[in-house]
Amino acid sequence: MAQQHLDPTDPTTRAVPVSGDALAGYLRAQATEFLRSLRQHRETGGGGAPTRASSSLAENGSAGSVDAARALRRSARRISGSLHTFRPLLDPDWSERMRPELAWLSGTLAREHAYSARLERLIGALNRLSGTGFPTQAGPEPSTTSKGSLTIGAAKAGALLDRQLTLARTRAHSAALQALGSSRFHAVADSVAVLASEVPLTPAAATADLRPSAAAAESRLLDAVGPLPLLTAGHPYNAEALVHGLSADTAPQPQDAPWHQVRLLLRLHRYAREVLYGEECPVDVRLLGAGQALNRHRDAAEAASAAASAARTPRIAPATAYALGVLHADQRHEVEAARFAFQQSWQKEAVPTP
Amino acid sequence: MAQQHLDPTDPTTRAVPVSGDALAGYLRAQATEFLRSLRQHRETGGGGAPTRASSSLAENGSAGSVDAARALRRSARRISGSLHTFRPLLDPDWSERMRPELAWLSGTLAREHAYSARLERLIGALNRLSGTGFPTQAGPEPSTTSKGSLTIGAAKAGALLDRQLTLARTRAHSAALQALGSSRFHAVADSVAVLASEVPLTPAAATADLRPSAAAAESRLLDAVGPLPLLTAGHPYNAEALVHGLSADTAPQPQDAPWHQVRLLLRLHRYAREVLYGEECPVDVRLLGAGQALNRHRDAAEAASAAASAARTPRIAPATAYALGVLHADQRHEVEAARFAFQQSWQKEAVPTP
Repeated sequence: MAQQHLDPTDPTTRAVPVSGDALAGYLRAQATEFLRSLRQHRETGGGGAPTRASSSLAENGSAGSVDAARALRRSARRISGSLHTFRPLLDPDWSERMRPELAWLSGTLAREHAYSARLERLIGALNRLSGTGFPTQAGPEPSTTSKGSLTIGAAKAGALLDRQLTLARTRAHSAALQALGSSRFHAVADSVAVLASEVPLTPAAATADLRPSAAAAESRLLDAVGPLPLLTAGHPYNAEALVHGLSADTAPQPQDAPWHQVRLLLRLHRYAREVLYGEECPVDVRLLGAGQALNRHRDAAEAASAAASAARTPRIAPATAYALGVLHADQRHEVEAARFAFQQSWQKEAVPTP
Repeated sequence: MAQQHLDPTDPTTRAVPVSGDALAGYLRAQATEFLRSLRQHRETGGGGAPTRASSSLAENGSAGSVDAARALRRSARRISGSLHTFRPLLDPDWSERMRPELAWLSGTLAREHAYSARLERLIGALNRLSGTGFPTQAGPEPSTTSKGSLTIGAAKAGALLDRQLTLARTRAHSAALQALGSSRFHAVADSVAVLASEVPLTPAAATADLRPSAAAAESRLLDAVGPLPLLTAGHPYNAEALVHGLSADTAPQPQDAPWHQVRLLLRLHRYAREVLYGEECPVDVRLLGAGQALNRHRDAAEAASAAASAARTPRIAPATAYALGVLHADQRHEVEAARFAFQQSWQKEAVPTP
């Protein structure tokens, strides 16, 4: 299979130089968005406990704070990514200090959401595998209605996953609250506040062209996609993702790592495009599809791993372990399906190298 | 999706009438083959025990008898299928008596092979899932070499399946031996011996055209393929086959039944073509691919069911149950993959209705 490359003469690529001003504008806008989300997060009671015990009013309150936290992560990732991609145009000391702090913040904020989404995915899969056809319910435990049609094993597996992932989520929530109250966070927020008014560009940046840095981000993406086993991934039911599904090694599947890496590089490429195009950034359906497939790949891989890890809980019933085995395999097949979807998105509209 | 039909003007369809002589010739040839296989089966020691304890010499001996039993089943199925398809051309009393006896015989002979193939498939899958990359080994238990890389759960699951399926195979072997020594079998063999020299055609058969009966067999196939969910099957990773994978219902998956039915009708259609074309019957790659996919569908469905049933063994360890859950899901995905393969074969070269 010929390796695919994005064509540098693609009409979606800027033909004229883009100066450092565009970067400054983008960073200012993201910093402003960061501060807005932070305010919203405080106002919507970001400190509310996310536990099941909370009343529906508090749940509503926390829905707003979930949105705010998502927006906060979103802008933190974009600032951090742009600092990385356009490093040569920014004050190096400042950006070297800033990036790990933003990564720490978005990582800390992401964990709570990740556990909650993972539980929802796994409970949804258990319902699907039980043929209940009920909508996904990440409630305290499989709802009474759907529980009726679940086998004992599936119901117990759901309850076990719920206990483990809810505990993890509660801990992540506390950690996020603690982080948001820390002096480390206040230092980040102060830096972002400065960024909202004054971007520390290098003296040369105002007249420099952003395109080479953006092109380098794209090259890193293409270099990482190159070695992916796309030929295999393009053959449906290749059964690759479940190889090692029963191996003694409990570490995360090493075969997933290159895909996770591409996911991060695809994101950086997408942010670089946003910088180049500003407000008028056209949606690239190919990148969008590929990115969604890689998100699904990551989510399914982590859900599979959570099912395998729950199965190692001491003293569980064989029926519970069986259901977790089915669930693990199901999510690993989701991993395989996501690779197939990525391959389809990536190949479909790619412009082959002449 | 437009429903696909085999085109009656297809060049592979006989344009000129085919008389009852062709049927008589075919039945005589199959009966002769039946008697030859039966002789070979006796000569190669079809009575040898198929247990693991048997020496490699005895294993070699039984390899010949396995081939003979396969050939015996093969001709019994063809005789029985032709009696069914070309019913109007044959003495009705005789063929009504004959068919259930042939079905009993080929069913009894098939079971031993089925258990042995199922064990091989499951042990192969366990090795694959453990990432051992070892060739399939349906030995007494996972070989020492590969066992080293299996988790305890996978190794125990393999040993459990081996015990259960070997026991079932041994019983099937005894039942087959008993059948081959029974007066019921001798009556069948006598009837087949008569068939080898004299086919009981109706008086009108010699001048009748076989094609309408063959076309009816094809119609029954097309009618059964019509309602299959081929649109879903054609979307890779549709996750249909594992729906109900954890449902409380332990009966074989009802969603499999229409596919099993198509498998039988496809076989009857294939035999009818053999009757029409005789020796010069052209290979229809489409039918071949579709038939192989349906065999794989049946094998995977039965293997999945064997894994689920092993998981209901009392007092197994959770790790064993987990491995069996992974294995069950893996085989249900094989079921889904087989449906996809069938859809691909079936659609690819079908001539659409104008």
